[in-house]
Amino acid sequence: MSENEWKLRPIGYLRSIYKDKFATPRQAGLVPHATGEIHLEPWVHPEASLKGLESFSHIWLVCGFHRNEQSRFLSRVHPPRLNGETMGVFATRSPHRPNGLGLSLVKLKEIENPVLRVEGVDLIDGTPIFDIKPYLVESENIADAKVGWLSQAATSSVAVRFTDKSLAQIAELPVPNFKDLIIETLSLDPRPVVYKKKTQNGAFRYSQVFAAHFFDYDVDFVFVNDQEIEVTNIREYRT
Amino acid sequence: MSENEWKLRPIGYLRSIYKDKFATPRQAGLVPHATGEIHLEPWVHPEASLKGLESFSHIWLVCGFHRNEQSRFLSRVHPPRLNGETMGVFATRSPHRPNGLGLSLVKLKEIENPVLRVEGVDLIDGTPIFDIKPYLVESENIADAKVGWLSQAATSSVAVRFTDKSLAQIAELPVPNFKDLIIETLSLDPRPVVYKKKTQNGAFRYSQVFAAHFFDYDVDFVFVNDQEIEVTNIREYRT
Repeated sequence: MSENEWKLRPIGYLRSIYKDKFATPRQAGLVPHATGEIHLEPWVHPEASLKGLESFSHIWLVCGFHRNEQSRFLSRVHPPRLNGETMGVFATRSPHRPNGLGLSLVKLKEIENPVLRVEGVDLIDGTPIFDIKPYLVESENIADAKVGWLSQAATSSVAVRFTDKSLAQIAELPVPNFKDLIIETLSLDPRPVVYKKKTQNGAFRYSQVFAAHFFDYDVDFVFVNDQEIEVTNIREYRT
Repeated sequence: MSENEWKLRPIGYLRSIYKDKFATPRQAGLVPHATGEIHLEPWVHPEASLKGLESFSHIWLVCGFHRNEQSRFLSRVHPPRLNGETMGVFATRSPHRPNGLGLSLVKLKEIENPVLRVEGVDLIDGTPIFDIKPYLVESENIADAKVGWLSQAATSSVAVRFTDKSLAQIAELPVPNFKDLIIETLSLDPRPVVYKKKTQNGAFRYSQVFAAHFFDYDVDFVFVNDQEIEVTNIREYRT
């Protein structure tokens, strides 16, 4: 095997509540109610290769950012938390990176061979998974690690409220914890940097209706002001 | 880009003090004096893509286990700490895994573009690196994670002593901290499981001289007993 060509074959695929990049959390673990299922492929012999994994609480997923062009990467990126400032791609977890590989630490809830149920996902539906590894608390739990620019970066959090109509709609849907999921996800402020800037400059008048695609539904919402979102409508997703 | 074929191109290669798999630590961070250098390739535009990384203390390396056949994997493996018991490959960090991808958390000491100096490596010389990502303390520092079989597994540690001859040889070599490095590395007990078993059964008479290949040197050592190693000789490595 030459180290100059390395071909990956998915060991499985993720089924995620997030169907689109928009509003998908930018890191794993931020949204506890963000569930997913990894469906392993027969070629990895799931029954044998999963033995012993059920006793771990957290696992690493090595995956591919399949909605981005793998060969295109940006050497400098604009992290959402930096409001436009640039960082080198290796100093970020941006999906626009050489080789397009993602790394995600999720909570392992249950294994029902060949399916793994996980929580805290930050990946969209259909993501190819290339490896699963147990989290090693003795060497990977580094409480005093320095996190550079991240320690100065603002973590914006917005309040999320609902119209009576949207609450009534949620109550009728067969989706457990849908309201919690919406609150946890939208409170992370899903706006792209460019919108945040517009808001700051006052030119953005909160008129735009955003839609986030969860499960088979679109969740419509508006920004009431810079710190508050109102969910206005839940509707079936139409392609 | 089809998610069914994913080709990786190394962003760089690791220069490691460990030249062979034998005696290389099985996890990152176990040997603080295990230094390495990542030499980035020009195609990732190191000057731009490294911007901001210098302020992180720990980084993830996503790499390839290039000395193993990438296409061959074992669905069940024998972790060294389990003395022969099997585990599913996904419940271990074994290098014999589907897609042959490694994940290593190392300490970032210095960046001198396009070279990154790191500590605590568990990878051998020439390892292709496919990605570098900052360690995110807010989501990846999980002190109470359950680590399954690992919490029961014995961490064997052996004492390391030196003959006068080997100490004199080390003193003359231009390698800083070589003695510390040898102690930290060999105390992890580099014997393959099969040798440990022989020892336990009494059939292994401690007669074998092992050699671990560090830098350009072979470090010869013997097991005085099951808990003690004696370093006997340091010599230039001959291929």
